[in-house]
Amino acid sequence: MSGPLRFEVDAESKSCDARVGRVSVAHGSFDTPAFMPVGTRASVKGLLPSQVRETGAQIILNNAFHLMLRPGDARVRDLGGVHAFMKWSGPILTDSGGFQAWSLADTNRINDEGVTFRSPIDGSRHHLSPERAIEVQNNLGADIIMAFDDCPPSVASSERLKAHRPELAAAHERQVGRDHHRRLVEAVDRTARWLERCVAAHARPQEQALFGIVQGGPDEALRRRSAEQVVSLDLPGYAIGGVAVGESSEAIRTTVALTAPLLPAARPRYLMGVGYERDLLAAIRAGVDMFDCVLPTRNGRNGGAFTRSGRFQIRNARFSEDLTPIEEGCDCPACGGGFSRAYLRHLFTAGEMLGPILLSLHNIRHFERLMVDIRAAIRDDAWSSLVRAWPVLDPLAGAAASGPEVTGDRSTTS
Amino acid sequence: MSGPLRFEVDAESKSCDARVGRVSVAHGSFDTPAFMPVGTRASVKGLLPSQVRETGAQIILNNAFHLMLRPGDARVRDLGGVHAFMKWSGPILTDSGGFQAWSLADTNRINDEGVTFRSPIDGSRHHLSPERAIEVQNNLGADIIMAFDDCPPSVASSERLKAHRPELAAAHERQVGRDHHRRLVEAVDRTARWLERCVAAHARPQEQALFGIVQGGPDEALRRRSAEQVVSLDLPGYAIGGVAVGESSEAIRTTVALTAPLLPAARPRYLMGVGYERDLLAAIRAGVDMFDCVLPTRNGRNGGAFTRSGRFQIRNARFSEDLTPIEEGCDCPACGGGFSRAYLRHLFTAGEMLGPILLSLHNIRHFERLMVDIRAAIRDDAWSSLVRAWPVLDPLAGAAASGPEVTGDRSTTS
Repeated sequence: MSGPLRFEVDAESKSCDARVGRVSVAHGSFDTPAFMPVGTRASVKGLLPSQVRETGAQIILNNAFHLMLRPGDARVRDLGGVHAFMKWSGPILTDSGGFQAWSLADTNRINDEGVTFRSPIDGSRHHLSPERAIEVQNNLGADIIMAFDDCPPSVASSERLKAHRPELAAAHERQVGRDHHRRLVEAVDRTARWLERCVAAHARPQEQALFGIVQGGPDEALRRRSAEQVVSLDLPGYAIGGVAVGESSEAIRTTVALTAPLLPAARPRYLMGVGYERDLLAAIRAGVDMFDCVLPTRNGRNGGAFTRSGRFQIRNARFSEDLTPIEEGCDCPACGGGFSRAYLRHLFTAGEMLGPILLSLHNIRHFERLMVDIRAAIRDDAWSSLVRAWPVLDPLAGAAASGPEVTGDRSTTS
Repeated sequence: MSGPLRFEVDAESKSCDARVGRVSVAHGSFDTPAFMPVGTRASVKGLLPSQVRETGAQIILNNAFHLMLRPGDARVRDLGGVHAFMKWSGPILTDSGGFQAWSLADTNRINDEGVTFRSPIDGSRHHLSPERAIEVQNNLGADIIMAFDDCPPSVASSERLKAHRPELAAAHERQVGRDHHRRLVEAVDRTARWLERCVAAHARPQEQALFGIVQGGPDEALRRRSAEQVVSLDLPGYAIGGVAVGESSEAIRTTVALTAPLLPAARPRYLMGVGYERDLLAAIRAGVDMFDCVLPTRNGRNGGAFTRSGRFQIRNARFSEDLTPIEEGCDCPACGGGFSRAYLRHLFTAGEMLGPILLSLHNIRHFERLMVDIRAAIRDDAWSSLVRAWPVLDPLAGAAASGPEVTGDRSTTS
């Protein structure tokens, strides 16, 4: 298409729906399948943009909701937009903030007009509507912006909120308490109506590519209905939303496998907030091109290290005299720089910032290298050698390869 | 001298006792006057060693007390020493931990043998003596190690501890409560006796340069007495301790001006824990060659920015739309990287780690550039042009150039 985004498919798998391509937008291009590190508040936590770039990341994600509240979208606009603000010269995608607004909303303040909520920063009252969400993203100036969708909560996500964001759990549970299927239908149809309003409100359609979002929860018929509605508008890209909200990996894969083929092959497909390595691979094989997830940075800050053969917790006492790097053969600044597991463990036990920094760099590099290797596997149809190089992708691998402690989602920060 | 340290003086000022030189030790050499960033727990907080190096720093400081408690000096030895542990290949100096041990000690547990104290980490009981302090530093393996000295508290430092480390203030005050002059005399003589024990205990004299420390508080006669005792041992270098423990800049300068000339000109002179720019300049003009201070990193983590014309607090609302860098013309990663004051303020108000990181980089670069410019001023006897380029050095400058909120000291972490 002409306009704000061009998507070229270079290679397609012979054995599945995976494809290798390249997306070009106003601030450059990125290879697909692409993994986007999350920089919620215009910063990938603890990392200079140059360090993020060195992980191989070609596009990053900011969160419109957080930047709208602080420092304010009009201020970011006046300061030159998110690229100039945070000094990331490459492509940026902003999530619309729908998920955050819904999570914070008083249920009495949700209607077809939009969502009213109180700022978690200062208690001030804010209103998000499709028009306002697009205005915010027009002000921020990212290359790819997301439609303002209706994000119905899942039962599972309520449980997760209780554990991770207890302050949000009560409002969330009130929403979940309604008849769930009726609520999913409402969300699908509202998302479609709002998408039309987003398109109409979009003031910079030649510079910013607006992606529509398919909802529908785990229900196949609803996913079809939503995809049909969303795809009826010719947009530069389409996203799969409403997954990774607390359900199992199995459920995520089923939903993605049924939804991805409903989206036009000529447009990039973006799976929001997923996930672990095997979830990414399954989605890529179903035809998904773009991913974002907080896992590498959030786990990294908490001492969680990703490797090709599974994850481990660096604080564990068994690493206290371990002179090996996080992962042999890794070229990230932590492993390539010669920092030992013993030193990294020391940094975490001593509360030194450098621990989260090094582990975030390693983990992001892990996901970026995974993308590089998956692209090669797609071109060469070399899936079994991919799995040999990345045992964590083996569906027969045990719990080490995938675990319950943190799943990817749109609900929290990077 | 042959042995673990060589000091060459390249140029001497025509108008004062300042000199430009170079110190060579086992892991390389550094230009003097030198400013050493503080990496208390084997990490300059938030920075990769490569980033520290890029500030121009050629030598860094670690704290033996903190590393003895965690991860343990024997463990660091088994892991290859501090250089291998933290991946800093250049010169490292370890402070002996005397100051920390004294601050934590139960007054009933201080005697000529040493100091007994409880670990602030886990409450375990530890004993530091001259022999043990040297053993710890032999295990850590820094290029320059410090004698275990008797650090008498000052009245002023008690007040500071109440504000900054209330958990230490009570024990501190008990010490201060004793007759202060008698205590200073005791500290001077004990420091001398302990220095002989340190020299005798030093197991790696060909690889690690042991510096003696002159005590004596603000008292001229005691400083002379201490210097005479310490200098009676032929050591690779000498330090001025017991300053910057809460007294005024004026008092620091008076003590340094009287003590520095008492130390042999052929050896590097190290002023511990100082300080602001004007204090450094005054000490350099008195003949001091080496400095360490937590100011650039600690202030940086709290939003305090150093510039050639004074300091400011980046959180201040007046910077919220300020597109200029911290300081025009600065080549640090924050200023040279194009990050605006507005963005830095956002990072601090949002609690993003990148704020402390960028400000620490800027502040360390500020002090390293100051050393570069002072070295040039010494060579060229160009003091007035130095002060023109660094208005903060102007003794007529107001409070903006030097302030009370944080002074340099040995008491806390980087």
